[in-house]
Amino acid sequence: MPSDEQEIRKVHSIWIDAVNAGDLARLLTLAAEDVTFLAPSQPPYGREGFSSTFVTAHQQMRICCASELEEVVVVGEVAHARSRDTVSVTPHANGKAAKFAEYRMTVYRKQHDGRWLLSRDAHTLTAVEGVLVPDVWIDRKA
Amino acid sequence: MPSDEQEIRKVHSIWIDAVNAGDLARLLTLAAEDVTFLAPSQPPYGREGFSSTFVTAHQQMRICCASELEEVVVVGEVAHARSRDTVSVTPHANGKAAKFAEYRMTVYRKQHDGRWLLSRDAHTLTAVEGVLVPDVWIDRKA
Repeated sequence: MPSDEQEIRKVHSIWIDAVNAGDLARLLTLAAEDVTFLAPSQPPYGREGFSSTFVTAHQQMRICCASELEEVVVVGEVAHARSRDTVSVTPHANGKAAKFAEYRMTVYRKQHDGRWLLSRDAHTLTAVEGVLVPDVWIDRKA
Repeated sequence: MPSDEQEIRKVHSIWIDAVNAGDLARLLTLAAEDVTFLAPSQPPYGREGFSSTFVTAHQQMRICCASELEEVVVVGEVAHARSRDTVSVTPHANGKAAKFAEYRMTVYRKQHDGRWLLSRDAHTLTAVEGVLVPDVWIDRKA
């Protein structure tokens, strides 16, 4: 039987594959109902905000994310992980690829049925001006 | 006896007061040995990186941070919290205050003696060019 850490590594791997495939439905099966995301320059958002941002992004660009798990710490029914992500985005409009790097901290919660789901996620990718990212990513707080 | 959540709220409050007071020694008593911080545009850093950044920042500017805890979730010996921070920085060089807002996700671990310490911390404050922040904050990854 795979360990909790192995299960979490699998969820992380499936998550990245689904991001690259533009598979929102798959991503939502990996996220807890109350999942909350933190990202630079915007207020926290949940499933709905994630979905609309994700769909808009994939409409505007091709996204290729590679992610390396740097740590997975399991403490009973909760775990936190840190990953180092490289994100390459290519807008359909001009085909010019741009590359970004970021670190991400994710909190996972074990469910009653044994599955591990994303519960909280904070990433540090700095928002970029211009056509590279959807407008929703560059709404800056006052 | 105060609950775990109350203890964590107290640590958070003392942390912010110590940030504003420039009290590095106090901050380090609230952080686990392996504490790791994530911030935009830089690799993860621990006690040493935090200390040098903090000292440099306080040498260059007056820092005033207000922070509101938006959630504290305790799961056994681990907890995660989200705060909304407002940071006002006033460089000694020109006295011109600038204000930033950010969200922060912190993982706390309960120690054998019952204390809760900061274990992981990710914030989304976007690094700013110019004199407002120490150089170490604006070293960008390739």
